[in-house]
Amino acid sequence: MKKRLCFFRIFVAENKNQQQMKTLSEIQHLLSTEIEKINLHRNPHGLYSPIRYTLSLGGKRIRPVLSLLACNLFTDDIQPAVNPALGLEIFHNFTLLHDDIMDKADVRRGKPTVHKKWNENTAILSGDVMMILAYQYMSAVPEQHLPKVLNAFSKMAVEICEGQQFDMEFESREDVSAEEYLNMIRLKTAVLLGTALKIGTWVGGGSDEDAELLYDFGIKIGLAFQLQDDLLDVYGDETTFGKKLGGDITCNKKTFLLIHAKNLATDEDAEKLTHYLNITEASDEKFSAVVSIYNKLGVRKICEEWMENYYNEAIAALEKVSVSTEKKQELRNLAKNLMARED
Amino acid sequence: MKKRLCFFRIFVAENKNQQQMKTLSEIQHLLSTEIEKINLHRNPHGLYSPIRYTLSLGGKRIRPVLSLLACNLFTDDIQPAVNPALGLEIFHNFTLLHDDIMDKADVRRGKPTVHKKWNENTAILSGDVMMILAYQYMSAVPEQHLPKVLNAFSKMAVEICEGQQFDMEFESREDVSAEEYLNMIRLKTAVLLGTALKIGTWVGGGSDEDAELLYDFGIKIGLAFQLQDDLLDVYGDETTFGKKLGGDITCNKKTFLLIHAKNLATDEDAEKLTHYLNITEASDEKFSAVVSIYNKLGVRKICEEWMENYYNEAIAALEKVSVSTEKKQELRNLAKNLMARED
Repeated sequence: MKKRLCFFRIFVAENKNQQQMKTLSEIQHLLSTEIEKINLHRNPHGLYSPIRYTLSLGGKRIRPVLSLLACNLFTDDIQPAVNPALGLEIFHNFTLLHDDIMDKADVRRGKPTVHKKWNENTAILSGDVMMILAYQYMSAVPEQHLPKVLNAFSKMAVEICEGQQFDMEFESREDVSAEEYLNMIRLKTAVLLGTALKIGTWVGGGSDEDAELLYDFGIKIGLAFQLQDDLLDVYGDETTFGKKLGGDITCNKKTFLLIHAKNLATDEDAEKLTHYLNITEASDEKFSAVVSIYNKLGVRKICEEWMENYYNEAIAALEKVSVSTEKKQELRNLAKNLMARED
Repeated sequence: MKKRLCFFRIFVAENKNQQQMKTLSEIQHLLSTEIEKINLHRNPHGLYSPIRYTLSLGGKRIRPVLSLLACNLFTDDIQPAVNPALGLEIFHNFTLLHDDIMDKADVRRGKPTVHKKWNENTAILSGDVMMILAYQYMSAVPEQHLPKVLNAFSKMAVEICEGQQFDMEFESREDVSAEEYLNMIRLKTAVLLGTALKIGTWVGGGSDEDAELLYDFGIKIGLAFQLQDDLLDVYGDETTFGKKLGGDITCNKKTFLLIHAKNLATDEDAEKLTHYLNITEASDEKFSAVVSIYNKLGVRKICEEWMENYYNEAIAALEKVSVSTEKKQELRNLAKNLMARED
């Protein structure tokens, strides 16, 4: 009898270790349902309908997905991480809303931006409410995690604004270094991925050490993703890239490619580059000429190497996280898919 | 010996009850020092210098003052309430920054507004950072108060945005009721005063009941103050009002006076009013004509009665707070001074 009891105990213990890992699509489905539940049928209608519109435009919900996958590494019960995950998604959409005003962008996810569909005042104020909503969802986390989660979230929120400011300042600067560029994309893009993973880890009961490793994984994936974006704008396939190629070249965006091209250019290349950068409208000639300078200087390879390094460093950080390698499969897949840009 | 010891004990107990109540000017001095300590000499400079500029413009710091006075009703040690009080002041200044863009206001406290001195993008993004900073200071409250304080703060923040939205919507509506107007000013102005008092009470160790009474005090003072603002724009003295009279009349702002005038107007008055409302530029003739309609219909008296009622209700709520009447003297004085507009 004693033996059987003992066997039963081991069985229970093993079952506890065998977590129910959720698949990416299960998590995405859960998130869609939860986003629809956010109560935005409120007065004044003019304030809340732009928020409904923004959140309904979809997107891949990568940030809350990352957060819930991180949580799921440490526990079956990812429910306590859902509210902060929604907070991350609302915050991300808030940044898009305000960035679109600042960048004078007319279209987002194939639809008119809020400041175009309504007006700038609406976009400012509805954006402000979204940031507060993000904080409300972020605060709806189990109390023991609240101070830590809130600190990490606010730190990240400030950093994203700093990233946007640097990005805008770079437009009128000619001396942006590769280091400054990497810092800007870290702030503007990567810290949100890292923080999403960190918060999910904490709420799932993971250690600070694992939270830091997953933060690092997110930062490096974010950097690799952004460098890939620079590459795809020049060397991508329009059908899979999802937007017209050459946008960065047309507006002389200081991408990793252009910054390196400027650094490596001979006097002759530099003169040619300056000539084409002075053409401000979209032109096939400008695109071909700039690409041929890039090719001559080998900046594609430099960018690809940096991208691959970041990707490898990301995976290395993930591997160090103190859970079994099988549990990390969904995160590994997601990282891979993000880099393949299949969606 | 026993007797003397006993006497000594009573003496200590009495001393404990005899709190060190801080004066208004002591609190204002403390706040100025703390505001100067906020670290805003940070990079990117272009993001943080507009925040420094905004916070250095001063103002009466009424919201943090109220919060610290409320805290001081219940404890000598107001230090734990300083950070959330700063959060309230930063949040208030954030709303001014974004409202000034939306209202196309060129001047604030006698100085150019941020979107005029810099540009709109800067005003949007620096405002966003200010909201996050406000949350950071709000979160730096003793941990036992954090969930409650944060909930109250976010609720208020959403309400203020709702108030601003209603205010903007009212500009293009002709059927705004007095009730809607009062709700709008409650959201846009009063809830910040109420919440400041509520948070200060909690952090000072006051009960939920006292927190509600002080919230009510703040709401009513806010409403009275705003109605007084409507009155002063028409009947005030330019030297003490601090701005030119008649601004509301020039831009046909749906104040409590105009709403009541429209409701009470005979056909003849209504026709005259409509005629003058169609004049959009500042004109002495328009001002005199509208004021004479107001006088004929007695709307000044209606507004004064509502204002006095709110003021009396505010004081009545304050009197119910469960601390000695002497301790409330600074709050009573502040309410009185606010209504007298001496500063």
